[in-house]
Amino acid sequence: MASAFRRIALIGKQNSPEIGQSVAALQAFVSARGGDVMIERDTALALNIATPSKTFDEIGQWADLAIVVGGDGTMLSAARNLVRHKVPLAGINLGRVGFMTDISRSEMESSVGAILDGRYSVEERSLIEAEIRRGERVILQTLALNEAVVGKGSQGRLIEFQLHLDGEYVYTLRADGMIVATSTGSTAYALSAQGPILHPSVPAFALVPLNPHTLSARPVSVSDRCTIEVVLLRAVDARAHFDGFALTDMAQGDRLLLRRSKDAIRFIHPPGYSYFSMLREKMRWSEAVEKAAFLE
Amino acid sequence: MASAFRRIALIGKQNSPEIGQSVAALQAFVSARGGDVMIERDTALALNIATPSKTFDEIGQWADLAIVVGGDGTMLSAARNLVRHKVPLAGINLGRVGFMTDISRSEMESSVGAILDGRYSVEERSLIEAEIRRGERVILQTLALNEAVVGKGSQGRLIEFQLHLDGEYVYTLRADGMIVATSTGSTAYALSAQGPILHPSVPAFALVPLNPHTLSARPVSVSDRCTIEVVLLRAVDARAHFDGFALTDMAQGDRLLLRRSKDAIRFIHPPGYSYFSMLREKMRWSEAVEKAAFLE
Amino acid sequence: MASAFRRIALIGKQNSPEIGQSVAALQAFVSARGGDVMIERDTALALNIATPSKTFDEIGQWADLAIVVGGDGTMLSAARNLVRHKVPLAGINLGRVGFMTDISRSEMESSVGAILDGRYSVEERSLIEAEIRRGERVILQTLALNEAVVGKGSQGRLIEFQLHLDGEYVYTLRADGMIVATSTGSTAYALSAQGPILHPSVPAFALVPLNPHTLSARPVSVSDRCTIEVVLLRAVDARAHFDGFALTDMAQGDRLLLRRSKDAIRFIHPPGYSYFSMLREKMRWSEAVEKAAFLE
Amino acid sequence: MASAFRRIALIGKQNSPEIGQSVAALQAFVSARGGDVMIERDTALALNIATPSKTFDEIGQWADLAIVVGGDGTMLSAARNLVRHKVPLAGINLGRVGFMTDISRSEMESSVGAILDGRYSVEERSLIEAEIRRGERVILQTLALNEAVVGKGSQGRLIEFQLHLDGEYVYTLRADGMIVATSTGSTAYALSAQGPILHPSVPAFALVPLNPHTLSARPVSVSDRCTIEVVLLRAVDARAHFDGFALTDMAQGDRLLLRRSKDAIRFIHPPGYSYFSMLREKMRWSEAVEKAAFLE
Repeated sequence: MASAFRRIALIGKQNSPEIGQSVAALQAFVSARGGDVMIERDTALALNIATPSKTFDEIGQWADLAIVVGGDGTMLSAARNLVRHKVPLAGINLGRVGFMTDISRSEMESSVGAILDGRYSVEERSLIEAEIRRGERVILQTLALNEAVVGKGSQGRLIEFQLHLDGEYVYTLRADGMIVATSTGSTAYALSAQGPILHPSVPAFALVPLNPHTLSARPVSVSDRCTIEVVLLRAVDARAHFDGFALTDMAQGDRLLLRRSKDAIRFIHPPGYSYFSMLREKMRWSEAVEKAAFLE
Repeated sequence: MASAFRRIALIGKQNSPEIGQSVAALQAFVSARGGDVMIERDTALALNIATPSKTFDEIGQWADLAIVVGGDGTMLSAARNLVRHKVPLAGINLGRVGFMTDISRSEMESSVGAILDGRYSVEERSLIEAEIRRGERVILQTLALNEAVVGKGSQGRLIEFQLHLDGEYVYTLRADGMIVATSTGSTAYALSAQGPILHPSVPAFALVPLNPHTLSARPVSVSDRCTIEVVLLRAVDARAHFDGFALTDMAQGDRLLLRRSKDAIRFIHPPGYSYFSMLREKMRWSEAVEKAAFLE
Repeated sequence: MASAFRRIALIGKQNSPEIGQSVAALQAFVSARGGDVMIERDTALALNIATPSKTFDEIGQWADLAIVVGGDGTMLSAARNLVRHKVPLAGINLGRVGFMTDISRSEMESSVGAILDGRYSVEERSLIEAEIRRGERVILQTLALNEAVVGKGSQGRLIEFQLHLDGEYVYTLRADGMIVATSTGSTAYALSAQGPILHPSVPAFALVPLNPHTLSARPVSVSDRCTIEVVLLRAVDARAHFDGFALTDMAQGDRLLLRRSKDAIRFIHPPGYSYFSMLREKMRWSEAVEKAAFLE
Repeated sequence: MASAFRRIALIGKQNSPEIGQSVAALQAFVSARGGDVMIERDTALALNIATPSKTFDEIGQWADLAIVVGGDGTMLSAARNLVRHKVPLAGINLGRVGFMTDISRSEMESSVGAILDGRYSVEERSLIEAEIRRGERVILQTLALNEAVVGKGSQGRLIEFQLHLDGEYVYTLRADGMIVATSTGSTAYALSAQGPILHPSVPAFALVPLNPHTLSARPVSVSDRCTIEVVLLRAVDARAHFDGFALTDMAQGDRLLLRRSKDAIRFIHPPGYSYFSMLREKMRWSEAVEKAAFLE
């Protein structure tokens, strides 16, 4: 049996009063089980919970486990805030279950109870460590759990860039942009750009061009041990973003360097969790879009 | 108000005893409204209905309207059998509503009642007239409401063919095959091969290559007034099929000629029918496949 | 034989001194054939040609034919400037022949000679008339020969919009944006977003979603006789652009209305022009991207 | 420096007299360098070379290195024949360089000379070990360097199957078929079915559905350490093939089991070889298909 968790932080979706009751119920449930509970500061403020609260940094120092109540976006944000502290995360979704928030409201008590008892599985997810260099200067350093994107900026003009892997030249492309996705991100933005789904156990990143000029450009999956470099050759304006956060303008000549972070996110799943069951549900693979029957 | 229908033929899905009750209810309903009803021979036999029945050819001569009870495959088959006789068709689907069978069981009486009263809309759908020529000989002539397909045969080896439009050379392609779809067929097999949806009011055919060797090959929509010619250049074995029926082996040098048929199918829709409402329902556009929220 | 052209305007690519010699040669060639030649003002200024020059509006009043020397972008710009005046256009490309500039430098004299003699074909291309409405106010009116695009703006956040056709609701989509392309534009930006190629004789527009959240969203081709309405439901920021020009910010609630313009562009092609020959060349269909031979 | 090769087998493309001269030149070149040369039996017969020849099995026992003269299909066939014997392979292409035959005729002597001298790189490529089970019986065992395919058979009717990974249920799909590709095969048939490119260093297989009914079905890359099981649920007829060879009929209920083979292919590359340089060349990424410039 895995080790049990004792110090639990609760993190809620922002600007969402509808989660108040669930957070309170969860707080009571964990306390009744003998766990120590803290609520993340902004969550506590928003929900008017008069409880000892902590900032993300304090949670990072203190907690054994963070439980997120909200959707995948809340999880994404919490994971980015806690990754350096190696706090594992579990996710509760009050609506339709998410890719990363796989515990439904109706199973909240039973699933969290099991997890507190040490009955859970751990799933490691890689992150991308990103750095933008302008000449010798590093102008941005950040992380991405889903994806790094270089794309066109406010003028909407396409960009031209060179791609290198471990120093080896790959190609020059004119496109709306380029997504570099982790396996976690392969079911997010990259999927809508026709990127491949990467099972979390595949140690790879997916390079997915956005509306490329070259019609034979295709998504390429590369080892997550290599360093990816995107050099911006031509751009009226360009922008990088990471998990939909950390927007940065990029200029001609800027270089975006991406490699796997030495830190990883750990997701805690209750007993019975199945990646493919979750995927099937989210992708609605169970209820096929039916075409006009040509072969009834 | 459109002209009313008086002589109604009922056609049921084959090998489907579960439709018996609905067919009987429909027969009684139409009779009670003063309409003459006939049941298609195979349907009557399969359902053990001791009623005057008619073959498709007799129905073609006699009926003002054919009502299909079943799915899109039943409609496809009935439409192919009746097109030369210009009998319009309405479709009832006992399960989930189809692309061509848009009346649900629960609305059967009200919709058919409205149609019999002359409250309906007519939608014309083009068909493809197909001909395969071997040297001077015509070895097959048939129709397609959904699509004509030239594809690899039993050996599973790719084929190579030339495409001409109105005698103008378009390209030579190596591929698993090629679909030529009508607008009706654009939501059938062609859709699963990444073909575009053509609204029925667009007078075009979609040319959709199947797994082409040339990565820049793309679906092309062409005027339905042109003659499409596919010349089989190289094939260990190849096969043509039409709406999933009328399978024919093709040999090297064979030419498949496709043009719009002078006949068209007329679908009869009850009041309130909307093409896009049907499409939205079938494509599940209303209930989006949700990706991991990168921007919650 | 078609009517001959006598008053010829020459329009050159901007900031491109390398076209000077060709423009001068063309001017001399047309004059020697007895034609009147005028050079577009900005072209004349840039090339330092001391010749009577005219603005686009003056050319619109005066010319029988405009000859563009440059690439497809120059042609696009010239066509937008001249469409209201119904001046037909021919295009010379000094580099690789373009989609709309189909006369190569080496055939410039022979092709233009043939055209001046009345040996040419005319190809009509539809345009989109676009209007953005904010409440009761019309905040933009413009034309598009290639495409109208509603997309995310400078924040890079996805947008949510509703699509209506002739007042009929089609769907609600969350996406990076949406392209509405003419047949001319179907080989431009829309093609890189997996849109279908529309032959110029197909009277349709292609609706191509950009990285849609809904994985079953597909390009739809609709009649060019219908009115397309895009209602912006949610957007942190959004932007419309037309042929890559006429950038406009859009706000929540804004409506983009698109219909076929009553004016059309007329392209003049020399003898021997073939749409598919051009397409084959541009798409490199002749030199297939070869995959690892699995069946040599 | 890597170990040098002394016993070299030459294998030529079948039914290709045009390779005779190159094979003879290669034989002389290797002999002159002090290597022992044998020619594969069928190659020797076809080319009328009166030289000691060997069957593939004898080559497998004897050779340090096999040099293939031909295209990727010849390499594929030779690799399948030699994999159990662990003989590494180098490939010479007399025409356009291939994905697996990366030495051009003009560099044959210099590249083979370098390789014989021990100046080369070794690239390992995984294979799939495939087994079809009918009830308790194993009806086929084979290998695939490119891909295993389950698809429709001679009737051209779609199939329905279940997919399991390491015993975990993934989905049920109706489709034309399913490709399971290695990284080597990811640039072959799978690529034309919109599959992702997998760099050879990514330890994964790509699962690529062929024209699936479910529009949200997407390629999925999974770890090459897992066991993939495809259970045929419904099929009028179905067929499996492996690298385009080893065609087998499959019946309802048959199970196709796929896992990584313990053997791998070793490709020998001359100095200067670059995977991406080869890919760029094959995919024509260097000479972009240019769309109508919307932003010149």
